[in-house]
Amino acid sequence: MAKVSVVYHSGFGHTKVIAEAVVRGAASVPGTKVELVPVDAIEQHWGTLEASDAIIFGSPTYMGSVSGPFKTFMDATAKTWFEQKWKDKLAAGFTNSGGLSGDKLNTLQTLAIFAAQHSMLWIGLGEMVQPEGVNRLSSYLGAMTQAGNVPPDQEPGSADQATGEALGRRVANAAARWSKGA
Amino acid sequence: MAKVSVVYHSGFGHTKVIAEAVVRGAASVPGTKVELVPVDAIEQHWGTLEASDAIIFGSPTYMGSVSGPFKTFMDATAKTWFEQKWKDKLAAGFTNSGGLSGDKLNTLQTLAIFAAQHSMLWIGLGEMVQPEGVNRLSSYLGAMTQAGNVPPDQEPGSADQATGEALGRRVANAAARWSKGA
Amino acid sequence: MAKVSVVYHSGFGHTKVIAEAVVRGAASVPGTKVELVPVDAIEQHWGTLEASDAIIFGSPTYMGSVSGPFKTFMDATAKTWFEQKWKDKLAAGFTNSGGLSGDKLNTLQTLAIFAAQHSMLWIGLGEMVQPEGVNRLSSYLGAMTQAGNVPPDQEPGSADQATGEALGRRVANAAARWSKGA
Amino acid sequence: MAKVSVVYHSGFGHTKVIAEAVVRGAASVPGTKVELVPVDAIEQHWGTLEASDAIIFGSPTYMGSVSGPFKTFMDATAKTWFEQKWKDKLAAGFTNSGGLSGDKLNTLQTLAIFAAQHSMLWIGLGEMVQPEGVNRLSSYLGAMTQAGNVPPDQEPGSADQATGEALGRRVANAAARWSKGA
Repeated sequence: MAKVSVVYHSGFGHTKVIAEAVVRGAASVPGTKVELVPVDAIEQHWGTLEASDAIIFGSPTYMGSVSGPFKTFMDATAKTWFEQKWKDKLAAGFTNSGGLSGDKLNTLQTLAIFAAQHSMLWIGLGEMVQPEGVNRLSSYLGAMTQAGNVPPDQEPGSADQATGEALGRRVANAAARWSKGA
Repeated sequence: MAKVSVVYHSGFGHTKVIAEAVVRGAASVPGTKVELVPVDAIEQHWGTLEASDAIIFGSPTYMGSVSGPFKTFMDATAKTWFEQKWKDKLAAGFTNSGGLSGDKLNTLQTLAIFAAQHSMLWIGLGEMVQPEGVNRLSSYLGAMTQAGNVPPDQEPGSADQATGEALGRRVANAAARWSKGA
Repeated sequence: MAKVSVVYHSGFGHTKVIAEAVVRGAASVPGTKVELVPVDAIEQHWGTLEASDAIIFGSPTYMGSVSGPFKTFMDATAKTWFEQKWKDKLAAGFTNSGGLSGDKLNTLQTLAIFAAQHSMLWIGLGEMVQPEGVNRLSSYLGAMTQAGNVPPDQEPGSADQATGEALGRRVANAAARWSKGA
Repeated sequence: MAKVSVVYHSGFGHTKVIAEAVVRGAASVPGTKVELVPVDAIEQHWGTLEASDAIIFGSPTYMGSVSGPFKTFMDATAKTWFEQKWKDKLAAGFTNSGGLSGDKLNTLQTLAIFAAQHSMLWIGLGEMVQPEGVNRLSSYLGAMTQAGNVPPDQEPGSADQATGEALGRRVANAAARWSKGA
């Protein structure tokens, strides 16, 4: 039984749509237990994270990096970091913003560096580009999705949700393999 | 009269030591008006920033990027960004952490991207390395300094403070030139 | 008379289309002298770069960063760097790739760090997103453009060329102001 | 039997010292077969890389990123990338430069993004800082080492070589576990 947690912040609901897609993808892999943890409720879930084989981090990109609430969560892991409690867990990331491109990569880089400080192994998206489909935005370090200034039940759309599902599946499969090899 | 503002967060006082050094450096350039703005007091200072020719951003590096409080400040500029009120101002950055190297660059990259979103021009440190002296850590995109787990009156030391002063001077000189050319 | 140089590499002609658009944009600013320098001909043009007020760097994004030939040019500036001959010049960058998003930002970050090592001031794109128009890809640190697997007379298209022109204009205007203030 | 390859470029021999330390570290893990591949000889070794469970990438940091020869190697993997032949292999990286800090992180970020394009899993250094010892430069995404303008038999010194060995050991252990779980 591989345990995968998805920790995310969502300001207006768009990133939550992807977080839920990531959960669906992970849960579709037999033998996976998945937990969805909003950063607002992190205080009740430190134990959940510590018991996980893999943690997937998700944040909107605000002003070119992770959101303030997500960064506040990252800072709150300082003690966990110092004790290296997440060492050798798997990690992955996703981010959503209003534009097609650009600065979402800085968010993924920030998440990958954060995971490396925790001595976690980083899993990228692992999907080639399908125009209008999975990984339509051509991202590799993690999943990038996009939503305009519309309600979250309109965007991010089905292609981006499929991208989130693909990330969840990939991490769950890797977590099973990594656990089995231990 | 060039106006330079230094906006910073400091968790334990070490980054504040550098912020004050940056202010000293900027103030040493004749005809420069310098303001020091802690992010905790930002609500009283949005007008100060808007009236500045140059804004220098300073944050500790926590878990591989800007601190949570500094990121919260960055997010709070979203309206300023949308109206592009800081367009064509100058920008620069500095960051302090406990180790010699590594992930401070991600903080400077995050600040440079943030400034670019605001359509500001980015000024790097502009100093070659002097062992044990100015720019001892060999950083170029901005000033990197280092302080161990000791009180801020012990570290960051004189070399790192001189590095901060050099950044302040450079930005103030550039602000004078940029204003004169307008 | 502000002098602007555009140094670029283009593997298949797509980045060259944007380089030429950047040149058009810069040349549209009265009083600007613009030179287009392919990295293959760099040996005849070191003096051109040294005499420039601003240098704009352009490279395809290959495997997540600047192309090999462009990196080879960057490495060849080591002596120029050591003597800081480009200090206080302006710098900017653009990059083209086949996908919409992702890893082009790493190319722009790499160019901005390179410019900072040379103690140059970095100018971003300075344009808000216009869907299907200027900055359609939502990039700020520099210009991002995109071309599929088609000949360069088909893509990058007119929106991306307009983005390149906007970058050229912005740099030329800044170079005039920066020169006047000296 | 886990197979680990170390692909590197070294301009003056300093990065080669670390490459050899990484090999020693990997070889110290029972049941590991290690190959050292200089990028100059890559044409004879594409098969070696394709048969590896893990590939460790090493490059000097020149002008803020991987060296020209290393980038040329990266570009030469485009066909391998298109066919995703390295998918699900493990990856890691190291870099050496003359200064303590700063822009080596951009090299490691560039290597991590490159590995993510190849759908590889990224393993960081996984070591806390020991002053004057392993990871003295405080790097996490990979191993950072430093050598001044002295012959490679003087620097990088024993602490940095121990850092390289630690990276090699970590990757070899992970490769054994990852292979076993398959």
